[in-house]
Amino acid sequence: MDADSYLAESSSLVDRYLDQVVPPASESPARLHAAMRHLLFPGGKRLRPALAFAGCEAAGSPAERALPAAAAVEMVHTYSLIHDDLPCMDDDDERRGRATVHVAFGEAVAVLAGDALLAQAFEVLAGGPAPADPERRLAAVRDLSIAAGSRNLVGGQADDLAFRAGEGGAGAIESIHQRKSAALIAASVTAGARLGGGDPALLERLHRFGEGMGVAFQIADDLLDREKEEACSLVRVLGAERARARAEALLEEALARLEDLGERAEPLRELARFAVRRNR
Amino acid sequence: MDADSYLAESSSLVDRYLDQVVPPASESPARLHAAMRHLLFPGGKRLRPALAFAGCEAAGSPAERALPAAAAVEMVHTYSLIHDDLPCMDDDDERRGRATVHVAFGEAVAVLAGDALLAQAFEVLAGGPAPADPERRLAAVRDLSIAAGSRNLVGGQADDLAFRAGEGGAGAIESIHQRKSAALIAASVTAGARLGGGDPALLERLHRFGEGMGVAFQIADDLLDREKEEACSLVRVLGAERARARAEALLEEALARLEDLGERAEPLRELARFAVRRNR
Repeated sequence: MDADSYLAESSSLVDRYLDQVVPPASESPARLHAAMRHLLFPGGKRLRPALAFAGCEAAGSPAERALPAAAAVEMVHTYSLIHDDLPCMDDDDERRGRATVHVAFGEAVAVLAGDALLAQAFEVLAGGPAPADPERRLAAVRDLSIAAGSRNLVGGQADDLAFRAGEGGAGAIESIHQRKSAALIAASVTAGARLGGGDPALLERLHRFGEGMGVAFQIADDLLDREKEEACSLVRVLGAERARARAEALLEEALARLEDLGERAEPLRELARFAVRRNR
Repeated sequence: MDADSYLAESSSLVDRYLDQVVPPASESPARLHAAMRHLLFPGGKRLRPALAFAGCEAAGSPAERALPAAAAVEMVHTYSLIHDDLPCMDDDDERRGRATVHVAFGEAVAVLAGDALLAQAFEVLAGGPAPADPERRLAAVRDLSIAAGSRNLVGGQADDLAFRAGEGGAGAIESIHQRKSAALIAASVTAGARLGGGDPALLERLHRFGEGMGVAFQIADDLLDREKEEACSLVRVLGAERARARAEALLEEALARLEDLGERAEPLRELARFAVRRNR
């Protein structure tokens, strides 16, 4: 098992599911549904779905059981990218080599497409065919809503916007990474593990693993994209070498959380190493 | 029991709860949290929370049991108003006699405040202290996410924006009212009834009641606000008299759904009559 093949398998699994649960572009309102799908297909690496699958496997269950969680976290991730790209936010015209949603469909439809993906992520997580018991589903809904709310994802984005106007040291930057990126990554792992039947002690360890690797992942992202000079980036404050060392330290700490979990946590370990050490 | 006092009691009940579950404006990011509260306190009539309480009573349970549903539907309603008011949507500067959120806090924070209210509505509905069993909570999450998604609220708003650019008859307008307004009203009633322990037959009746009274409510709203000339309004297409007759017919149909439910559905009946016949 290497990360590349795990990501490839995860993509094909989650893509099929997403295609079923997100209304087709032929369904009215067609423009809205096309906009919801614009950034979703083709997607990126599908790292968050892969982490949901790997979390489910770490809990001792087959990856497929995490499908509703895998699809839901990717929908939340996609919504957040669509809204981050808006003119009133980062004002980006391009993402993954294609026009951003507001450039392709207009600003109003982009806001609405993000809104709908966020709302429907909870429909997918609360519904779906997986056999997990209702208590676990409900806990996964809580994980995801907390990760997406003002104390995490949205709050991190608000502080990110404020940060660019002013100043802030390494501590402020890590706090933003923690909320804006790592919280959803941690929720991906734990929501997957919940649907896989993980016990509270395991969920706690996986949550901390996800938080640590999430921040390390974001630093790695900034190392790969040094052009974002104005952005909230540890690389800008610490320099590339020290930022890389910080990411490695966080990765080692995160991997230590998985000690004693044996073979079944191997996908999580591989994904973490890939996410932090990748060069693309 | 009259509608006014029921609404007043509902407001005081849900306001206290909302104040607990929405982070205080003193908590960082302070600007974001202040923006989330700007349109939430003071609120409007709190019709949707009252309908959640009344749905719970119709299922034979004390109103308080519906608190998580009552708070969640008001958060979703408030998010939708904040996003509808944005410059790229309806571009409104004022609501309920005060500056809209984007005027008071800027466009980026307004988008984020709406996003956070939507995400956290699901946290409130999935968490909270009410004793309802997980299966019912999960069904309430599904109700709300379906009502908020692209097949209902967001799709209705997308078609509303498209409508103003082009043309459409009474049928198109009712379809927009159905999705943009009535779906969330119906979900308010059913989510409340679910937390109150309603059986599937009752839930089905309440859903249809909510859909009918929701469209009638929207027509009543348009009758009270005839200045919105360009808007998607039955009044503009049918004239005031025929629009009023249509609202009355829908109200009677909705009330017929509650036949045989006796005293415990009286709050729902009173609220429906108030919502459709009010003059403010």
